[in-house]
Amino acid sequence: MNKEQLLKYREEAYQHLTKELLPFWETRCVDEVNGGFITHFDNNGNDSGEDEKSLIAQTRTVFTFSSAHRAGYGEGRYAAIAKHGVNFLVNKMWDVENGGFYWLMDRKGNVRIDEKIVYGLSFAIYSLSEYTLATGDPIGLEYAEKTFNLLQVHGADTHYGGYFEMFTRTWELKGPGSAGGDRKTLDAHMHLMEAFTTLFEASGQQVHRRKLEEIIQLLINKIMHPVYSTGIPQFLADWSVAPQIKFDIIWGWDRFSEDGLKSSAEDNTSYGHNVEFAWLLMHALDIAKIPYDDYNTQLLKSFNHAIDHGIDWEFGGVYVEGSHAGEVYDREKEFWQQAEVLIGMLDAYRIYGDEKYLKAYDSTHRFVFEKMIHHEVGEWLPLLTRQGEPIWTHMSHSWKVNYHSVRSMVQSIVRLDKLVKTG
Amino acid sequence: MNKEQLLKYREEAYQHLTKELLPFWETRCVDEVNGGFITHFDNNGNDSGEDEKSLIAQTRTVFTFSSAHRAGYGEGRYAAIAKHGVNFLVNKMWDVENGGFYWLMDRKGNVRIDEKIVYGLSFAIYSLSEYTLATGDPIGLEYAEKTFNLLQVHGADTHYGGYFEMFTRTWELKGPGSAGGDRKTLDAHMHLMEAFTTLFEASGQQVHRRKLEEIIQLLINKIMHPVYSTGIPQFLADWSVAPQIKFDIIWGWDRFSEDGLKSSAEDNTSYGHNVEFAWLLMHALDIAKIPYDDYNTQLLKSFNHAIDHGIDWEFGGVYVEGSHAGEVYDREKEFWQQAEVLIGMLDAYRIYGDEKYLKAYDSTHRFVFEKMIHHEVGEWLPLLTRQGEPIWTHMSHSWKVNYHSVRSMVQSIVRLDKLVKTG
Repeated sequence: MNKEQLLKYREEAYQHLTKELLPFWETRCVDEVNGGFITHFDNNGNDSGEDEKSLIAQTRTVFTFSSAHRAGYGEGRYAAIAKHGVNFLVNKMWDVENGGFYWLMDRKGNVRIDEKIVYGLSFAIYSLSEYTLATGDPIGLEYAEKTFNLLQVHGADTHYGGYFEMFTRTWELKGPGSAGGDRKTLDAHMHLMEAFTTLFEASGQQVHRRKLEEIIQLLINKIMHPVYSTGIPQFLADWSVAPQIKFDIIWGWDRFSEDGLKSSAEDNTSYGHNVEFAWLLMHALDIAKIPYDDYNTQLLKSFNHAIDHGIDWEFGGVYVEGSHAGEVYDREKEFWQQAEVLIGMLDAYRIYGDEKYLKAYDSTHRFVFEKMIHHEVGEWLPLLTRQGEPIWTHMSHSWKVNYHSVRSMVQSIVRLDKLVKTG
Repeated sequence: MNKEQLLKYREEAYQHLTKELLPFWETRCVDEVNGGFITHFDNNGNDSGEDEKSLIAQTRTVFTFSSAHRAGYGEGRYAAIAKHGVNFLVNKMWDVENGGFYWLMDRKGNVRIDEKIVYGLSFAIYSLSEYTLATGDPIGLEYAEKTFNLLQVHGADTHYGGYFEMFTRTWELKGPGSAGGDRKTLDAHMHLMEAFTTLFEASGQQVHRRKLEEIIQLLINKIMHPVYSTGIPQFLADWSVAPQIKFDIIWGWDRFSEDGLKSSAEDNTSYGHNVEFAWLLMHALDIAKIPYDDYNTQLLKSFNHAIDHGIDWEFGGVYVEGSHAGEVYDREKEFWQQAEVLIGMLDAYRIYGDEKYLKAYDSTHRFVFEKMIHHEVGEWLPLLTRQGEPIWTHMSHSWKVNYHSVRSMVQSIVRLDKLVKTG
């Protein structure tokens, strides 16, 4: 390990975070007129005008400013911005009658999609818990717990375990197929693990730790591939693998054909998702004070699948997705996988010490800083070709915002500091 | 089918219910001094003085008077008695701070065991829902739903499905072994099915129907024996069969040796419990408007195991328990198995039409009316020898009270009336 090199990564990350990323958001996202956050910006960083406020973008922005404040940035200004976002969540997005947060509003705060979507609710639990941890203001944890309780009552499948994910405004389970009522996903369950971790960190309640332990077991024993320990995207209620379909309610840009099917609908895994899962699992174990012993096999498989198949050693960065056995299907470079691989590879290197993880970090760091970050404006480009040419160029959208990019920098700096200290 | 015989059963049941059973309880159970109910009576029907009010006895007495009122008995007096019991539950037994009902109090209403025990909570949900169905007073359903919600949040096992059953006052899961925190039981899950049925009947809410469907599947697919479809009493969290042990908190008189183990700890089933499960399942399907088609195999196996091995065709009545394959271990006659077999065999005869079920009803009816009912006083003896000699002679105790005997008569009359009408 080259300490100088680590310090250089750290300095680049710190400069990007404090001079580009956080200022990008601080100077343009607060909606002083209607409350909450503006979250749609074009390549120049100008408001691109989409008239929507999504649960994901609002909660993630609360997380971003809360976590930045907790990590010591912003001298109090970020706590105030987070509070501004919490007010909108509690006063506008919360369904007073039925409980839970709506999925989508217009900028003024009129409800546009009133459904209760677990993916979004997981970010409400995560962000509101982080807000209380960062500021001490109890209202965050109060609404995180309300959301957690509603999820347990309405979402848990007490037959097969895990959670159903798509509900109407009044918490009736939606229908099957593209409505999603019969499906369980890696995505929602992984983000619930992340959410329960921070909820337990904020509350200290045994029930939150217990549900965290349960969902960790579910992820490892049901959701990860029995041979490769890589993430399988979609399941039916009984945990049989479901062909990956496009839902009516989406939160990303997964590639589907016209009929809503994927080309490799039953043999598909995301390198970035697997690495994200691994470092989130390590963090969950840390918070719950559980030793890694029983989890090393899973963790190493998650990291090594990306090392062996996902990292682009030629052009840098990590590919989008491929088969569980290793064949790469999609060599484009999406923003969020890069962000998660940065954190995850530092964790892998820190714990397991193999230089290959640091090389993977370096490869991804170089690609992000040289190709993906739009330094003049401050945020990351959402999608590049394998070689690093822009495909999509906007700076933010409901499904992009700031959670991956800011968290990646905040958490990478924490990990680089640890490495420098122990190195 | 002999209509005259059916009318004779009906008349005997009606006379016992209205002249003996209900008057027994109406004249002595209301505690005007401390609220709630006195539930301990000796063989003469005198208060035997035990200084305890158990969650089971209080809720079951609320159920008894509510259901008797709903079935048309008591001209309003039983609704008032039920209300008296609900007041004690809500004002004394409810844990305002942590939610949920305490397990045991003294007569004055001081908490003696403050734990949250799912078996007892299932009767709270059941009884309070029945109370609202009977009277229209919304407070019953309000507390039934509160209890249901707490059970979902704290009790559900989101990894393996089903419910954990033993919690501290603050809803921390108790330890393993005799503390019961690592066990799942047929008993609690069956009574949750019963409770969710009546909760859904009262609320009409989809979530209550959904949890009812889930627990039905659990009972059939995990809790019933894979070959014999008979009930297995105890499991570990992952639904592997657990040797039957005695818990620190008990609600019955199961026979255990000194060291808290059963003689046939891993091959033991109760005929009466299996028949009770079958008729409760039929009732659940009726309330949820689910056809019996997919459940006939289970239902017939439950009834026929008792017919083939449990009914005492010589002395009448049903034995206590035996092996799944059929060997009888315990030929004594306990009150509650007789009560449930009466209802169940009438249901089996009504649906499947085989005279053997009516013969089993007749055999049990005769035994109950000639040997078990203490007609001079009004209630049933708790335990007799195979031949019908009294072993235990008290009329009521925390684990006996009135739920089995009164429900057996109320529900048998409903079924006999149907048979007479269609016969």
